[in-house]
Amino acid sequence: MNYKMMGRFIGHILLVEAVFMIVPLAISLYHKEKMATIGFAASLSIILLFVLILSLACKGSRKGFRAREGLVCVGVSWIVMSLLGSLPFYISREIPFYLDALFETVSGFTTTGASILPEVEKLSLGILYWRSFTHWLGGMGVLVFVLAVGAFGESSKGFTMHLLRAESPGPQVGKLVPKMKKTAEILYLIYMLLTVVNIVFLLFGGMPLFDSICTAFGTAGTGGFGIKNDSIASYSPYIQNVCTVFMLLFGVNFSCYYLLLLRQFYSVFKDEELRLYLGIVLGSIVLITLNLRGFYGTLEETVRHAAFQVASIVTTTGFATTDFDLWPSFSKAIILGLMVIGASAGSTGGGFKCARVLIVVRSLRRNLRRAISPQKVQVVRINNHMIDEKVLENTNAYLSAYVIILFASFILVSIDQFSITTNITAVLSCFNNIGPGLEAVGPTCNFGDFSWLSKLVLIVDMLAGRLEIFPILILFSRSTWGHLKN
Amino acid sequence: MNYKMMGRFIGHILLVEAVFMIVPLAISLYHKEKMATIGFAASLSIILLFVLILSLACKGSRKGFRAREGLVCVGVSWIVMSLLGSLPFYISREIPFYLDALFETVSGFTTTGASILPEVEKLSLGILYWRSFTHWLGGMGVLVFVLAVGAFGESSKGFTMHLLRAESPGPQVGKLVPKMKKTAEILYLIYMLLTVVNIVFLLFGGMPLFDSICTAFGTAGTGGFGIKNDSIASYSPYIQNVCTVFMLLFGVNFSCYYLLLLRQFYSVFKDEELRLYLGIVLGSIVLITLNLRGFYGTLEETVRHAAFQVASIVTTTGFATTDFDLWPSFSKAIILGLMVIGASAGSTGGGFKCARVLIVVRSLRRNLRRAISPQKVQVVRINNHMIDEKVLENTNAYLSAYVIILFASFILVSIDQFSITTNITAVLSCFNNIGPGLEAVGPTCNFGDFSWLSKLVLIVDMLAGRLEIFPILILFSRSTWGHLKN
Repeated sequence: MNYKMMGRFIGHILLVEAVFMIVPLAISLYHKEKMATIGFAASLSIILLFVLILSLACKGSRKGFRAREGLVCVGVSWIVMSLLGSLPFYISREIPFYLDALFETVSGFTTTGASILPEVEKLSLGILYWRSFTHWLGGMGVLVFVLAVGAFGESSKGFTMHLLRAESPGPQVGKLVPKMKKTAEILYLIYMLLTVVNIVFLLFGGMPLFDSICTAFGTAGTGGFGIKNDSIASYSPYIQNVCTVFMLLFGVNFSCYYLLLLRQFYSVFKDEELRLYLGIVLGSIVLITLNLRGFYGTLEETVRHAAFQVASIVTTTGFATTDFDLWPSFSKAIILGLMVIGASAGSTGGGFKCARVLIVVRSLRRNLRRAISPQKVQVVRINNHMIDEKVLENTNAYLSAYVIILFASFILVSIDQFSITTNITAVLSCFNNIGPGLEAVGPTCNFGDFSWLSKLVLIVDMLAGRLEIFPILILFSRSTWGHLKN
Repeated sequence: MNYKMMGRFIGHILLVEAVFMIVPLAISLYHKEKMATIGFAASLSIILLFVLILSLACKGSRKGFRAREGLVCVGVSWIVMSLLGSLPFYISREIPFYLDALFETVSGFTTTGASILPEVEKLSLGILYWRSFTHWLGGMGVLVFVLAVGAFGESSKGFTMHLLRAESPGPQVGKLVPKMKKTAEILYLIYMLLTVVNIVFLLFGGMPLFDSICTAFGTAGTGGFGIKNDSIASYSPYIQNVCTVFMLLFGVNFSCYYLLLLRQFYSVFKDEELRLYLGIVLGSIVLITLNLRGFYGTLEETVRHAAFQVASIVTTTGFATTDFDLWPSFSKAIILGLMVIGASAGSTGGGFKCARVLIVVRSLRRNLRRAISPQKVQVVRINNHMIDEKVLENTNAYLSAYVIILFASFILVSIDQFSITTNITAVLSCFNNIGPGLEAVGPTCNFGDFSWLSKLVLIVDMLAGRLEIFPILILFSRSTWGHLKN
C-alpha cells in the first residue's frame, strides 16, 4: 500500500475542507454567533494541524497507484473528512453528542439529508450554511474537486483514473474527454453553473439570499437538508416548482449536459438512460396523481405535490412539501420503488441508478433468450453500444452486495423497537442517500431516536451508498490488508 | 414448438392428478359428505375427459424436445393442473368463488400454504385431505413423479432432462445417478419413506390417523396447510417438536440422504450448503430465544416456539404454534430474512435457497478480490468444486428476476389499501412459497380480503416461486412465441 501518496492525498482533501470552512466562519463572525465562531475556528485549526502533520509525514514517493489503493484512498478520505467535518457541530454544542454530529455530517457529505435534529431552525446561520454546504461538496465529489483544481497535476494518470472511478456514481466511468483533470473541470463547471442558475430562480421567487443559497446547495447535491423545520412546505408554489425542476435536472447524467454544450442534441434525445429516467418520473407522477384524487383541494395542488415528491425521491434529494407518509398505500409503494431505483449514473443523485436498472433488465432478458435458444450468441446493448461482460458482471455483483447490505442493516437496525416499515425505510433511505423514510422516519420525523448502534449502521450505509459500496466494502476485506507489507 | 409431445405429457400429468383424486373421493363417500362427493366425482370426470381429448389429439410425433419446450411444458402443465385441481373446492361449494379455489389450489401445489379460508375446520374431510395432498404432490414435483413411474420410458432422454431441470429447485440439477428415471425414482422413494416415518412419529404422540397423514403431507411438501384453525398450536409440545424436526429434515437437499444411503457420511458432513442451512437455523433460534426473554412462561416454551417458527419459515412450510406477528421487531426481522433465504436446493422447500446464497456471496467475494488484485485469476468454489461461469451468471440473473418480480408484485398488491408491511410480507410469503406473512396476513389471518387483482398477482408469484421463475417468465416472453411456427 502506497501510504505516503494516500496520506498526501488526504492532506489535500482536508485542506479543501478547511478552505471551505472559512465561509461559515465568516458568517458566524458577522452574525456574532459566539459558539459557532468558536466551533469553526477550533475545527479549522485542528484540520490545518492534521494537514501539516500529513504533509510532513508523507513527503516523497511518487510511484504508481493501483486500483486497490484508489478504492481504499476514497473510502478512507471520506471517513476522515466526515470525522473532522463534524467538529463544528460538536464544538459549538449545537449538536452536543459527537455520534449525532457525525451522523449529520455523513448525512451531509453523502447527500443523504437524514437528520437527527427535531428543529433545524434553532441552529445558528453559520452552522446551517455548513450543514447545507456539505451537500454541495459531497454531491459532485470532493476528490473530483481536488482533481479539478489540479492539486496532483497530470503526472499521476493511473492514480486519478482510479480515484474518479471509485468516487463517480454509475456502472461505467464517463470520461468526457481523454484527460481526467479536464473531465473533472468540466463536471464542476456545469455543476457550479447549474447551482448559480438555481439560486437566481429562487431569488426571483422572493426567497431570501441565504435561504436560496442553502436550498440550492441541498438541491444541487441532491442532499435534502432544509433550513426550515417543514422543509420546503411553507414556501410558495413557484419556489416548490423551481425545486422540482432543478432536483430533476441534477438527477440527469452530467455527460448529457456536456453533449448539449457540444450541440449533440440527437445523442441526448436518444439516450436510453435519460429516457428511462424521464419515463419513470412521468409515469410515477401520473399514477400518484390518479391515486391521490380527493386528497388535496385542487388538481394543481395534487400534481404539484406529486411531482415534487417524485422528483425529490427519485433523485434521492429528500426535500418534502407534504407528509407522504399519509398518502394511500399504492402511492407509498411507488415512492418505495423510486427510493431503490434512484437517479441517473453520473449525476449527483444516489440509489441503484437508472443505468444499472437498464443493465440488469437487459442482462436478464439476455439470459431468458439464451434459455430459449441456447445456440445463439446474445449481447447486451445500451445506446447501441455493446456492454462489456465485465461491466455486466460488476453490475450483478453490485446488486448482490446491495441486497446483502440492505438485509444485514435491516436486521441490525431492528434491534431498536421500531416498526418493520420504519426499519426498512430507514435503511433504504440512508443506503440510497435519500433522507426521509416512512412512519417513525417519515418526512415530519427524524433519526434522533435511534440507538447508537443503529446510527453507526446507518452511517456505514450512507457512506457505502454514496461511494457505491466497493470502496467501503473493501475496507472490511481481509485481502486488502493482507497486502499491508507492499 | 412440439405441441403434440407437450399435449401428451400434460395428459399424463392430468391422469396422475385424476388417480390421486380417487382417495379423497373415497373419503367423502365413506363419510357421506354429499357435496364433496359430487365435487370430486364431477372433477374426476372432467379431468378424465381432458385426458381422453389430449390422448386422441396428440398422437404420434416422437421427435426431440428442446430446452425451451421443457420450460414451457413445465409452466403450462402446472397451470393446467392447478386450474383443474381447484374444481373439487369449487364444485362442492366449499369455496364458492372460483378465483379463491384457484388461489387455494395453487397455494397447495406450490407448497405455499397461504389460505383464503378463515376457518378450515368447517371443510369436509375429503376436501381437507385433497387440500393437504396437493402439498405432497407439489413438493417433490408432479413431473418428477411422472418421470419416476416411467410414463415416458428412457426413450426421450433430452426431454426428461429438460423437464427435471425446469421443475427441480436449485441452481444446478442434482443428477444422483446417470439415468434420469432412476434419479426421479430414488427421490420419490426417499420422500415417501420420510413421510411415512413422519406419520408414525405423529401417531406415537397420540395424533389421530387422519390428522397425522394431513400434517405429514403439509410437512413433507413444506406446504403448511393445517387442518386446524390455529395450525399446530393446540397440539402437544411433543407433536410440535416432531413437526420442527421433520420440517427441517424436508428442507435438506435430498442428495444428502442419498449419500447417507451410500454411507458417504464424510461428504454429507462436509457439505457446505448443509452447514450454511444448519448454521442459519441454529443462529436464528439462539438470537430469537435471546430476544424473546420474558415473552413466554418458561425457557422450554421459548425455545420450542422459536425453533418451530424458525424451522417453519426457513423451510418455507408456514405452520405456526404462536402468533409471531406479536414478537418484537428484531425477531420479526430475522423471520423476514429467513423468508427470503429459504431452504436448501434439491429439497421440497422454497425461497431463494441456501445454495444460491452461497453462490451469490462467493461470487461477490470473487469480484471484490478482483478489484483488489486485477491480475489474479479467481474462481468460485463450492464443496471444492469449481462452479461453472454459466451457473454464476444464471444465479445472478435469478437474483435480478427475483428482485424485479418482488417489486412489481409489491406495487400491484399495494393498490389494495393494506399496510406496507402487509403488502411486502404477502408478496414475500407467496413468492417464497411460505404461507403466513405479517400484520393483515399474519399467522392468525388469511388472504381472503385481497382484491381479485392482488390474488391473481399472488397466484403468479406462487407459481413463479415454486418453478424458480424461468418456466413462468418464459411464458410472458415474446421470443418464446416468436417460434410458434417451428
